[in-house]
Amino acid sequence: MIFRFHYPKSYCFLLSLVLIMLGCSRNEKRDLKSNLRPVIGLITDFSTKDPYVSQMKGVIYSLDPYARVIDLNHEIDPFNLAEAAFIVDQASREFPADSIFIAVIDPGVGTDRKAILFESKARKFYIGPDNGIFSLVMDREGIMGAWVLDKPEIWRNRQPSQTFHGRDIFSPVAAFLSKGGKPQNVGSKVSQEKLHFLSFSPASIIGESVSAQVLYVDHYGNIITNIPLGLVSWIKEGNLLRIQIGKITLAAPCVKTYSDLPLGKIGVLYNSSGYLEIASNQGSAAKVFKAQSGVSLLIHP
Amino acid sequence: MIFRFHYPKSYCFLLSLVLIMLGCSRNEKRDLKSNLRPVIGLITDFSTKDPYVSQMKGVIYSLDPYARVIDLNHEIDPFNLAEAAFIVDQASREFPADSIFIAVIDPGVGTDRKAILFESKARKFYIGPDNGIFSLVMDREGIMGAWVLDKPEIWRNRQPSQTFHGRDIFSPVAAFLSKGGKPQNVGSKVSQEKLHFLSFSPASIIGESVSAQVLYVDHYGNIITNIPLGLVSWIKEGNLLRIQIGKITLAAPCVKTYSDLPLGKIGVLYNSSGYLEIASNQGSAAKVFKAQSGVSLLIHP
Amino acid sequence: MIFRFHYPKSYCFLLSLVLIMLGCSRNEKRDLKSNLRPVIGLITDFSTKDPYVSQMKGVIYSLDPYARVIDLNHEIDPFNLAEAAFIVDQASREFPADSIFIAVIDPGVGTDRKAILFESKARKFYIGPDNGIFSLVMDREGIMGAWVLDKPEIWRNRQPSQTFHGRDIFSPVAAFLSKGGKPQNVGSKVSQEKLHFLSFSPASIIGESVSAQVLYVDHYGNIITNIPLGLVSWIKEGNLLRIQIGKITLAAPCVKTYSDLPLGKIGVLYNSSGYLEIASNQGSAAKVFKAQSGVSLLIHP
Repeated sequence: MIFRFHYPKSYCFLLSLVLIMLGCSRNEKRDLKSNLRPVIGLITDFSTKDPYVSQMKGVIYSLDPYARVIDLNHEIDPFNLAEAAFIVDQASREFPADSIFIAVIDPGVGTDRKAILFESKARKFYIGPDNGIFSLVMDREGIMGAWVLDKPEIWRNRQPSQTFHGRDIFSPVAAFLSKGGKPQNVGSKVSQEKLHFLSFSPASIIGESVSAQVLYVDHYGNIITNIPLGLVSWIKEGNLLRIQIGKITLAAPCVKTYSDLPLGKIGVLYNSSGYLEIASNQGSAAKVFKAQSGVSLLIHP
Repeated sequence: MIFRFHYPKSYCFLLSLVLIMLGCSRNEKRDLKSNLRPVIGLITDFSTKDPYVSQMKGVIYSLDPYARVIDLNHEIDPFNLAEAAFIVDQASREFPADSIFIAVIDPGVGTDRKAILFESKARKFYIGPDNGIFSLVMDREGIMGAWVLDKPEIWRNRQPSQTFHGRDIFSPVAAFLSKGGKPQNVGSKVSQEKLHFLSFSPASIIGESVSAQVLYVDHYGNIITNIPLGLVSWIKEGNLLRIQIGKITLAAPCVKTYSDLPLGKIGVLYNSSGYLEIASNQGSAAKVFKAQSGVSLLIHP
Repeated sequence: MIFRFHYPKSYCFLLSLVLIMLGCSRNEKRDLKSNLRPVIGLITDFSTKDPYVSQMKGVIYSLDPYARVIDLNHEIDPFNLAEAAFIVDQASREFPADSIFIAVIDPGVGTDRKAILFESKARKFYIGPDNGIFSLVMDREGIMGAWVLDKPEIWRNRQPSQTFHGRDIFSPVAAFLSKGGKPQNVGSKVSQEKLHFLSFSPASIIGESVSAQVLYVDHYGNIITNIPLGLVSWIKEGNLLRIQIGKITLAAPCVKTYSDLPLGKIGVLYNSSGYLEIASNQGSAAKVFKAQSGVSLLIHP
């Protein structure tokens, strides 16, 4: 009788517990796996003045109301693939696994250039034209897999415009991944050898000097070179170097941070991404050297 | 006795079930209906340099912590209502039902110009001054209803500033809708006839030619005209046309996409919104024609 | 027997209720306290062209996937601490309690300038260099507490770069707060007297005139002065004043809003933040007066 009295109580209690746990875990899963979206970062040369970025956002939110779209960069120099490759690499590097990036610097839109998704070994997803803009991030993060976007059934519509794949193809594919779609379901696998890469010649040692290139000039006028930390031992804090860009050669100390230089004076330092940077304390090194991205430079001890 | 033994168990079980379902459905509703907000898109001529957009965001997040505010465009040419109408129409078109837009291009702020909310037949909500900036989106999406914002009890405060209704009136109304408020509760219904419209003269056929206007010049220098797809049969891929803007007349092929043109050469194509666009492959057609929005043009076969 | 029959039922019912309430309140708390993040607003002089803002966003989302990062301003005039102080104050003022702000205008990065978190009496959190950029917001909101960021265990890594504390220190601290971390756990308490303040001389009455300074020139060309509402009684709607900036003196009426002035004509009004503003209806007062932030001005009755 005791047992029978306790039976319903225990049964009921356990049942409640199980049901509540089911309920909670359902919530847990919905929150964490389904409703909390990875961010979708947008990198374009569209500017923020024109309506194109807004249209991409509209497509993504239409297909996935839970999406979390964030602006990364819309001011890539139009059609400048090398700068795009640099920005895609630099802008994406700190993001966590599962993040999705759409990059639209796409002068060949509407031609037979491929549209691709690639998944890096850091488990991040990159969507855009196969024109080399992913070269540097592919180098840094490695390629886990790549797919050609050839499944119109997940696009905005089956007849995409010839001039705006960012809206009609890349954004729907990003929304598809955002909702939990698998990369292998966006198109046909493509091997690494068939992808387009830009060639970036690395910095090299020539005699006693370093021959290098300007990767990027930032809006302060800092000149970011392709010389990585550790290439030569004599580019180190405390040493005085000579920097030659075009017809201009200047002596410059190697310092730790901008403020180690007198105001307006030129120096070099290893920047926060590990590249050698030519800078001026609160001034523009690029103006002094008339430098822009892509030009060559020499550094002499 | 069996019944009476089972009674508490069943009762308890059912009760648990009902309570859990209530709990879950409450969560469900809160998550889906209440906590997942429609996006609030901001379109202004405020620039991103000044603090005005930040203040609007602050007001919205203060009134609705769950709000999802996104930037669409803050670089409308100051006070340019025709450009604003174009951008509001183009920037909003891909967004889903329930989306909310605030448009602040408002040279008449503080005068007796009306402040309105209008709901389109696509079930999207547009908030801003009644100065014509919604003309094109009203045309495209249709008007379901419109209301004059005359209920100070839902504003930031009852004495709004005379110079910043974007912060004091439009943002609170957007937060009100974001939280699930009904459009009819933001103010008095106003009939369509009492709203202000900008007149955009449509492209027309004059003799053998098309007379049209420049709707917008984008940052690439593409010239977007008001000639819709299908107006005349002879503007089609493969044909050579003559384009006349001001004193400049140039021959231009009609192509499918930018890359069909030689680098730097002028052509025309139907763009991703269905308008005829005069473009140059990786160059600026606007510079070639010295064109800006609002000017007239002729296209000859 | 009745009692014993009811015992399990009641017990079970109450137990269910308690468990469900626990479950719900756990959800409630997770949703409201844990998963619904306060916004993290970014204010920098990084521009949106360079990859630095993206890297900060990446760090924050890596450390707190639930974070809600919003852009406030990335176009502060580089290294202009006075303008930064104005923008930080104006951009943050409408945000609710719990909001987090990162301000990176940091010419002294890598030197011994302190990095701080301060909590205002409005319960908002401000993270950045201790170089005076928080002067105006500290004045307006008051200081509840301030801490020096000296706990490397919550940074991006224990060896932060010497040139980018926005990424390596400020962003991780913001993510720490976003996840519910306490301000006292980010570093050592620092007293108000040890913080760096910029000196802003207030507007003053000299004889019959007001001597003041330009706080900011906005992108319309409106000149925002440091003259607060109520300083003198004769600056009021309807009165005609004389405004002197540098060598230029002009008569200007005091009006309620921009449209009260003829197109292109100069006037003054109290703006939406309560400061006296010199404006031109759809024109640039700054161009007329050749004014920029920091310059002095006189207003005569």
